[in-house]
Amino acid sequence: MSDLVLALDYGGTKLSAAIASEGAGPTVSGDGWLALERVQKPAGADGAFDRATMLQLANKLLAGRTPKAVGVSFGGPVDFPNGEVRLSHHVPGWEGQPLAAQLQEALGAPTTVDNDANAGALGEHAYGAGRGQESLLYITVSTGVGGGWILGGRVWRGADGMAGEFGHVKVDPFGPECVCGGRGCVEALASGPAMARAAAVRLAADPSAGTVLRQVAGQDEVTAVHLGAAAVAGDTVAAEALATGARAIGIAIGSAANLVNPGRFVVGGGVVKAGEAFWATLIDAASEHAMPEVNVEVVRARLGDDAPLWGAVKLAEGTVVRRSVA
Amino acid sequence: MSDLVLALDYGGTKLSAAIASEGAGPTVSGDGWLALERVQKPAGADGAFDRATMLQLANKLLAGRTPKAVGVSFGGPVDFPNGEVRLSHHVPGWEGQPLAAQLQEALGAPTTVDNDANAGALGEHAYGAGRGQESLLYITVSTGVGGGWILGGRVWRGADGMAGEFGHVKVDPFGPECVCGGRGCVEALASGPAMARAAAVRLAADPSAGTVLRQVAGQDEVTAVHLGAAAVAGDTVAAEALATGARAIGIAIGSAANLVNPGRFVVGGGVVKAGEAFWATLIDAASEHAMPEVNVEVVRARLGDDAPLWGAVKLAEGTVVRRSVA
Repeated sequence: MSDLVLALDYGGTKLSAAIASEGAGPTVSGDGWLALERVQKPAGADGAFDRATMLQLANKLLAGRTPKAVGVSFGGPVDFPNGEVRLSHHVPGWEGQPLAAQLQEALGAPTTVDNDANAGALGEHAYGAGRGQESLLYITVSTGVGGGWILGGRVWRGADGMAGEFGHVKVDPFGPECVCGGRGCVEALASGPAMARAAAVRLAADPSAGTVLRQVAGQDEVTAVHLGAAAVAGDTVAAEALATGARAIGIAIGSAANLVNPGRFVVGGGVVKAGEAFWATLIDAASEHAMPEVNVEVVRARLGDDAPLWGAVKLAEGTVVRRSVA
Repeated sequence: MSDLVLALDYGGTKLSAAIASEGAGPTVSGDGWLALERVQKPAGADGAFDRATMLQLANKLLAGRTPKAVGVSFGGPVDFPNGEVRLSHHVPGWEGQPLAAQLQEALGAPTTVDNDANAGALGEHAYGAGRGQESLLYITVSTGVGGGWILGGRVWRGADGMAGEFGHVKVDPFGPECVCGGRGCVEALASGPAMARAAAVRLAADPSAGTVLRQVAGQDEVTAVHLGAAAVAGDTVAAEALATGARAIGIAIGSAANLVNPGRFVVGGGVVKAGEAFWATLIDAASEHAMPEVNVEVVRARLGDDAPLWGAVKLAEGTVVRRSVA
């Protein structure tokens, strides 16, 4: 057996696989893998495609070697104790797949599977912006809004494995409807598509508003990237849409701070690249809505898109520890 | 040394002291103490009064015996690791008091001090409506709204010892101002005084509204007890004020369920005596605002006002265990 750890990340649009030496972490530049393979998925790729392609990536990296353990980040709800995928919200053909058992059989090594938010929390906690914290909430804001807890130095998964759904903290009972069936959730106000939609509604309602944003978006549907560019150039429709999203995240961080009082909030996802104004609004709202006695430290994530993959390394190493204890 | 455990509860209006045999719990009727002493505090009682009176109660109960350990529930923020009171929001003269050290010296036994919400959570977890749960949020709703976590079978206190402030989860960003400096907190919408104030505002605004509530309250300022009585008798102003409070608690439970996913919510305080309509509204709102995948079980607390005192027994027993391990 080698001292290799294999880390896999099944995302909505990408598949990533990497190998690292047991105990190694990322370098300052964010790299540190022995080798890494990434595939951009074609439109219409399903669960079967994901599973077959990931195995090819893994076998290419391993080149005949057997890893000591395998850690997996999956982009959707997971039954952690059993290593089964519940479903993917983006990719059909994942319902009830026993992914840990399949990989264990194919690769000959103990395998641990968790969702990408928990894996991201683990990665940032071990190697990134959460190092040394006994507790943190990792928040990721992009097309959706997710989160993962570290409490007492370990992932907190909750009674149904559903803990960390920061995107579905309620911010405004009269706010927009959310995909979860609720109303006024963080995700319905602060995800990239939600902010873009709010700006588009304003543009449609007022033909004289948002001149710069209209230029930036051109014939295309407004996106969060358009908002960022237009806001920097002084567009008030774009700036207001971003501020509404930033405030929603900040209010929910204030609530979470009062409720759970973690040592740090680590915010990642596309939003890390939003401008300074977005960040300042978010932090002001968080401080304003946390109680004076509650310390609220909000920092940007450091590992970028690789946070779940580094978390998968920690999942794999955790397997090794559990085995040696048992 | 005896096998006696001494439990003390320093409340805003009452002081309670009790002794139990180590390992004993409450009987079905809610009793189970070897002996119990309670004092209703006179107006103007300060920290010095509390400390002197509680020592008298303790010495009376102990009658010369030395307890094995002392557990303390305190009605205000506490520095748990150091056993110091930070302050009382209701009683002057408690700032920075080293209560654990004082009691340890006076009573000759190891002493553990925690706030009343954490103590209540411990009590309900060990002996009440939270038995057998690996995780729960204990919520207490009366003149204020507080909460305490059990996560992984132990109290979760957070990075600054401030975890569990359920009363300061945000429900409505445009809601009423809160004592914490925030806006639209659960406590600002659902505490007894908040609901009474909302009803009083309606009565003042509309002289034809709330006939029954006016009769029930008479010349007195409207209270939550008046609301309960008037609502049962069909008063719509009272019913709406209660429903607004119940919905606020339910929305915040939904957020907390999505964020932390505890196995159970245990709701105590004066609200346990609110009518069935209040309870039904609360539970409907909680289910509506939790994600479909998240189980939300909301139950009434069982130990009533004695939950913190039984939690103090667990705090004392925890001290004994920690000492024998160290």
